Amino acid sequence: MVQKLLRAHASVRKYKDYILSKEEISELVETAQHAASSHFVQAYSVIWITEELKKEELGKLSGNPKQFETAGAALLLCADFHRLQVAGELQNTIIDIDTTENVLVGTVDVALFAQNLVIAAESKGYGICFIGGVRNEPATISQLFNLPEGVFPLFAITLGVPDQQNEVKPRLPVAAILHENTYDDSDYEKLLKEYDQTMADYYVSRGANQKVATWTKQMADFLEKPRRPHMADFLSSKGFHLK
Amino acid sequence: MVQKLLRAHASVRKYKDYILSKEEISELVETAQHAASSHFVQAYSVIWITEELKKEELGKLSGNPKQFETAGAALLLCADFHRLQVAGELQNTIIDIDTTENVLVGTVDVALFAQNLVIAAESKGYGICFIGGVRNEPATISQLFNLPEGVFPLFAITLGVPDQQNEVKPRLPVAAILHENTYDDSDYEKLLKEYDQTMADYYVSRGANQKVATWTKQMADFLEKPRRPHMADFLSSKGFHLK
Repeated sequence: MVQKLLRAHASVRKYKDYILSKEEISELVETAQHAASSHFVQAYSVIWITEELKKEELGKLSGNPKQFETAGAALLLCADFHRLQVAGELQNTIIDIDTTENVLVGTVDVALFAQNLVIAAESKGYGICFIGGVRNEPATISQLFNLPEGVFPLFAITLGVPDQQNEVKPRLPVAAILHENTYDDSDYEKLLKEYDQTMADYYVSRGANQKVATWTKQMADFLEKPRRPHMADFLSSKGFHLK
Repeated sequence: MVQKLLRAHASVRKYKDYILSKEEISELVETAQHAASSHFVQAYSVIWITEELKKEELGKLSGNPKQFETAGAALLLCADFHRLQVAGELQNTIIDIDTTENVLVGTVDVALFAQNLVIAAESKGYGICFIGGVRNEPATISQLFNLPEGVFPLFAITLGVPDQQNEVKPRLPVAAILHENTYDDSDYEKLLKEYDQTMADYYVSRGANQKVATWTKQMADFLEKPRRPHMADFLSSKGFHLK
């Protein structure tokens, strides 16, 4: 049952002592590549990190040292227009990567690819965690892995044999996500208050890491200040000027 | 076999006469919501378009009128920080959506959600097609569906019972995607030339729509001119100033 697998997803942040082989990683990447890609640009690259020192460094830079320590594999997922520039050169054509549109295309391409990879991994019993924290230090991380112009790190994924099993968190009610024919926010206040209660009940009763919290409070605290205001300048330094 | 399902993906652009019910759409959305979400912001909304006139209009605006005509369901996928703004208001907090980072977060969130939805649909025998063409006319489409500030359309998905079965296109060789410890483009020229041959062979021998083409030529032609240069201004008009 595929839907059962998809609904069972929860982040795994601690792994048993098992290192994935090159064959396993290649198989996961090849499966992931079958995701759709905008105009078939296939604008993604994966850095598989096997050197202990680099793995440790990426763990520190992205604020998740422990996860990287026990992971059976650590992957850095990048949007990649450099390979497309090489394709252009083979055709004596200078391609234009320098638009906001290409940042969106690369980001969507990476994410569709990554979700396929994650589902393939979870179907084999592995656990995974996305790590957006690589965007805390994108310039330093780019240097660490020699990312050229046209390539930017979007997130990392750790994966491995789960040494913990987190519970599945309740999601927003479908009624707050799904609109028919027109965007309609007239029930948001009611739905979000109900969801706050659902999440509060979940947080106090779950097996581990119990706390007193609601979703709207978490979101308000998290988004009160601008998030990663360096990203525009960083993307510009990689050739994407967001014009 | 989940990997077999993932590797069987090919876009479907023509559908048999079957309309998905609200129960089916709700089930797909609920499954999709189990994808990971950055800091659990769940920054996505779906407009399910059932009004014939609006469906026709979206088909025209995104350059795919025929697909929308036969589709069993048409969905507009949007990044959504408006609902997070409402969450902030409930906590008497003004949240800051105005950064490039939030555009990336929303885009990743929508894409992970969408890929889950697609896999759930394909596991039930439906075919799907992503339509990035909604970014041709994002402002008009935003008006058509009353998208407020903080919400932007990223792509559409049509789905339904397949009335055609496209072959699976060969992907780039894994060696061109997967790097170990450091980004390495030293084999790109060789790999892309081999891949051009693979694609040329595929295009002349496939069952339908045969043509003479290579991947590097397609990419060079496609990316020679700036793509959708209006996107930065459009995102700015929705409250994301890419600073």
